[in-house]
Amino acid sequence: MISSDASHPINGAPRGLSILGATGSIGTQTLDIVRLFPDRLRVHALTAHANADLLVAQALEFRPNCVVLGDETARKTVEEALAGTGIRVLMGSEGLCEASTLPEVDTVVAAVVGFAGLEPVLAAIRAGKRIALANKETLVVAGALVNQLLHTHNATLIPVDSEHSAIFQCLVGETAHSVRRLILTASGGPFRTRPKEDFARITLAEALQHPNWSMGAKITVDSATMMNKGLEVIEARWLFDLGADQIDVLVHPQSIIHSMVEFTDGSTKAQLGVPDMKVPIQYALSYPQRWPAPHERIDWTTLRALDFEMPDVEKFPSLQLAYAVLRKGGTAPAVLNAANEQAVALFLNEQLRFVEIPRMIEAALDALPVTEATYDALVQADAAARRLVLEHARAVVH
Amino acid sequence: MISSDASHPINGAPRGLSILGATGSIGTQTLDIVRLFPDRLRVHALTAHANADLLVAQALEFRPNCVVLGDETARKTVEEALAGTGIRVLMGSEGLCEASTLPEVDTVVAAVVGFAGLEPVLAAIRAGKRIALANKETLVVAGALVNQLLHTHNATLIPVDSEHSAIFQCLVGETAHSVRRLILTASGGPFRTRPKEDFARITLAEALQHPNWSMGAKITVDSATMMNKGLEVIEARWLFDLGADQIDVLVHPQSIIHSMVEFTDGSTKAQLGVPDMKVPIQYALSYPQRWPAPHERIDWTTLRALDFEMPDVEKFPSLQLAYAVLRKGGTAPAVLNAANEQAVALFLNEQLRFVEIPRMIEAALDALPVTEATYDALVQADAAARRLVLEHARAVVH
Repeated sequence: MISSDASHPINGAPRGLSILGATGSIGTQTLDIVRLFPDRLRVHALTAHANADLLVAQALEFRPNCVVLGDETARKTVEEALAGTGIRVLMGSEGLCEASTLPEVDTVVAAVVGFAGLEPVLAAIRAGKRIALANKETLVVAGALVNQLLHTHNATLIPVDSEHSAIFQCLVGETAHSVRRLILTASGGPFRTRPKEDFARITLAEALQHPNWSMGAKITVDSATMMNKGLEVIEARWLFDLGADQIDVLVHPQSIIHSMVEFTDGSTKAQLGVPDMKVPIQYALSYPQRWPAPHERIDWTTLRALDFEMPDVEKFPSLQLAYAVLRKGGTAPAVLNAANEQAVALFLNEQLRFVEIPRMIEAALDALPVTEATYDALVQADAAARRLVLEHARAVVH
Repeated sequence: MISSDASHPINGAPRGLSILGATGSIGTQTLDIVRLFPDRLRVHALTAHANADLLVAQALEFRPNCVVLGDETARKTVEEALAGTGIRVLMGSEGLCEASTLPEVDTVVAAVVGFAGLEPVLAAIRAGKRIALANKETLVVAGALVNQLLHTHNATLIPVDSEHSAIFQCLVGETAHSVRRLILTASGGPFRTRPKEDFARITLAEALQHPNWSMGAKITVDSATMMNKGLEVIEARWLFDLGADQIDVLVHPQSIIHSMVEFTDGSTKAQLGVPDMKVPIQYALSYPQRWPAPHERIDWTTLRALDFEMPDVEKFPSLQLAYAVLRKGGTAPAVLNAANEQAVALFLNEQLRFVEIPRMIEAALDALPVTEATYDALVQADAAARRLVLEHARAVVH
């Protein structure tokens, strides 16, 4: 039943990559994979928001066609550092969209954090690219739109998130309509065992201590509120075309089982591994093949148990908010996402307390109307939600 | 990445089944699956060794083309009971081979226990059938021969054993050469926590108490000695065409993870379920599809942990014997299998103690020469090993 090795999409030539968000956690780990497979992967574009020094260092090592910078203030530094290399320096969202659609690019690694990551992904889809998707907002905010475009332009979305990669891996070779439900595992974050009464005293430093995964600050806080899992439920709904009632969350503190699929015949499949994003990143680049790599493996001689518990929705209301917006549909997920981004930004800036994050989101969802999810409506909902959270936050803090 | 529903092999007509060993544990559960899917499965042949009453009842319910009986003494009873039904009554290994090769049969469920199950499987392979394999000995004794015949006759072998079914399910859709190793899980049997010093006092009744699975007596004893797992290691070597050093055993007392595959890229996939043979039996019949069925599912709201430990090779020497015969090759696995069958038969008859089972096997392996595994050599090795165990057992007991 093992299919013969699928031939390489471009006849043995390296797969051309554009890495959006190259200086972030996913971007730098993607470049680690490129270093492991220099004959199979070739970088044509690298983009960064403002980390000019790292972007320049990456450009000098990987020699892409172009780099893209989000922050205008660093432009000169980058242009001077790359002068004479032939590497073009592009700017802003226009540059991002060019990087996503270069003809020599086969796969776009979409690892820009937040709503800003949506537009270049839509451009890549329209160009029929394969997209290795690490940006949650693309599907959370615009899942219906994205699925429609994927279908029209025959583009492929491969998840990079460890949970969705796990489900994707469990589904290869399975026939349609064989899924009963998905079980997204969650570490439970740093506050899994903290009593609810103590949540009001949670500090920023505590929220940034994830027990298993090393990730960016925003995602680490999302993991502490469990909004991360809520966003993943929404993503899974679109990635795998299932109803919200077919997606469950199970707390598994060791993060060894990355997620599971329960099939209609009673069988369940799980994908497992040590918490290391390099494995799902590599899989998104090698799929449908697997490439031998020295990533750390599970050591079953020392691993004695995998533990499970149901999520505590009293302590983590964000999870229920995510299910609620899936039921509401339209622009509701965009409001949830934007309100969360804004609230987490304020928390990271120590302008909001931890417990206020879900309250801000709930208030925004209550205040803003749900409309049809056109691109313009999504942009407006995003902006309105952010404004509302800023207003509410000012009222709370001062 | 989900493939579209594979069309039914015979254009929507039910899949034609021949069930070899219909009155045993696997056979009766296979008929339970047929009862669930009367439109998709049709029984054309049923075979039994000596359980005439049950065979007759099954024949009257499922109306096959023929039944096959192993034991001549029950012939008359069956012929009389089925007189006027049009159901033919065939006898012995000739009858088994006819049942395996009927033109209307698409899938042969091979659930005859022991060496006797080999010949009809070889006949089914030569007839190009799909074989749902529950008989361990086919691959343990004649793995090389079977693989060569499968290739020549374009037949398909689908494992029914929960462990091998798990691996098979983890491998669908994966490309060749992507497997680093298989991890066969083992419950550890009823004596996992019993101290080695107490093994000499193990009784037959204790050995027949399996903690998780309800199976036939022979397999239950094999599970208690862990020879069951040793035989599965040998089967896995042939089913998945891997080296003995790529197959490991991990004790997992709950039997929820049925086995795992570790891939070359560091990812691991597992198949899970409550211990219920109906799920792998059904999968072998529905593959590559899955059919919705009301089999019991894992209840994650009550399951709190999955535990693991390394097997204790001091307490369970049978496991090491299995790896040893894989390295020896030729007729060595046939000797191991026959010596084990004979020793377990004596133990079930209370003519041998539990701890003597592996000693008998080791003595047979030491005494008998390893030759090339032709069919005739396998038959001779089988007979010689049984004789030797009977001789040794007489020496021990009296």
